[in-house]
Amino acid sequence: MLSKNKIKFITALQKKKNREEEKLFVIEGDKLVREFLNANIRLKILVAKPEFINSLTSDKLSLSDETESVSFGELRQLSSLKTPHNALAVVEKAEPGFDQSRIFQQLSVALDGVQDPGNLGTIIRAAAWFGISHIVCSNDSVDVHNPKVIQATMGAILHVQIYYADLLEYLAGARKKSIRVFGTMLEGESVYSNELADKGIILLGNESKGISPDLIPFISDRIYIPGTGSSKPGIDSLNVGMAASIVFSEFSRRN
Amino acid sequence: MLSKNKIKFITALQKKKNREEEKLFVIEGDKLVREFLNANIRLKILVAKPEFINSLTSDKLSLSDETESVSFGELRQLSSLKTPHNALAVVEKAEPGFDQSRIFQQLSVALDGVQDPGNLGTIIRAAAWFGISHIVCSNDSVDVHNPKVIQATMGAILHVQIYYADLLEYLAGARKKSIRVFGTMLEGESVYSNELADKGIILLGNESKGISPDLIPFISDRIYIPGTGSSKPGIDSLNVGMAASIVFSEFSRRN
Repeated sequence: MLSKNKIKFITALQKKKNREEEKLFVIEGDKLVREFLNANIRLKILVAKPEFINSLTSDKLSLSDETESVSFGELRQLSSLKTPHNALAVVEKAEPGFDQSRIFQQLSVALDGVQDPGNLGTIIRAAAWFGISHIVCSNDSVDVHNPKVIQATMGAILHVQIYYADLLEYLAGARKKSIRVFGTMLEGESVYSNELADKGIILLGNESKGISPDLIPFISDRIYIPGTGSSKPGIDSLNVGMAASIVFSEFSRRN
Repeated sequence: MLSKNKIKFITALQKKKNREEEKLFVIEGDKLVREFLNANIRLKILVAKPEFINSLTSDKLSLSDETESVSFGELRQLSSLKTPHNALAVVEKAEPGFDQSRIFQQLSVALDGVQDPGNLGTIIRAAAWFGISHIVCSNDSVDVHNPKVIQATMGAILHVQIYYADLLEYLAGARKKSIRVFGTMLEGESVYSNELADKGIILLGNESKGISPDLIPFISDRIYIPGTGSSKPGIDSLNVGMAASIVFSEFSRRN
């Protein structure tokens, strides 16, 4: 049986402020919890139905500092979802060192003000699929530890490092090192014909405003995804998650 | 001021059963309503804030059989969204004739049991972008007139015809006409190297179960999207909306 204080502590982590203070976040779902355990990540608290706990081997169970066996009703009290899963866990936020020169050696992603948790989740998932390991988000982007982002990544969060930074400074640094910045725009050169590189930064913008005017000067290659759509009313754009998937795929195909 | 009966009538359309009985559905949002009007589609009922109504030209306004000027509070009562927009409208369901031989002459899409409204919306949006005009859904797929699907399509619904059919029969018909069926799977030939065609059917499966076993024999080309992901735990797949975007892009690039 969970104490009221513990319920309060865990549900408080649905708020960004509390996640930042505690340096903790919540993962939900049998599959996600198993994936964290399989990656040997320590859980601060594991809260799950007895069947789930019993299904874990003892070496996995020992990765949890504190394990609470609970009823479905108790899980419902903790969950950010309409229908809770059988398990959730509180995990320490990884705070990866922001080693820019290492990131510059690879193909990476920068996100300027992506707001929708589902979109960030999709982008992380696509990045993981195509072997992109680093995403640098502007400070006003949605928090990667938001429960909806975590849910949408489906475990891909384990394979991609996410950083928050001032993109103006970051891209200025990239320019100094002559790193190409591929800005996805509504016009430019077709992503199919641009000479893509195996390193550089793919810059994607906010859902409605696109890339901020002050970042545009740092773009070395404006790329767009040609569509018949652009000429018809009502098809004004692909969403940023779809655009990311297509652009990552095209870089991956050519490299 | 809206009557109680009218409120009941409009909110009832959030249910599939009622949409089918009335052959009506609801579109929400200033932008979407404007796009329907710009496409000269008649509105059975337009419900909007006075500012929105006043912003319409009289020829557009005359496309609405019944126009109700309401407060934000009234819109909130009608809306399926947390935060209602300034306008919504009740529209007659278009029931396009299912002319299979015409569809077979083009590149089209078949969806086997796609359940998530957001995914169907994304797929319609991607189809519209890449000039694909026909999507045939299995009868157990999510209803295209579900408010969440309509919302996710962002107007692309105006450019893509959606049909519901028995896919077993439909694909059997395609085979008789020697139409290629490109099934997106986790294995097969890379979508980047398969010899794609400018006509045929792209078949996408259910979010968790993939393509039904009884449809697999109709696939002429098994295609997959290569990723580094497949080899790592926690990256088991791209979601169907992302896969659709990438595959449509690849067909578009090559044709």
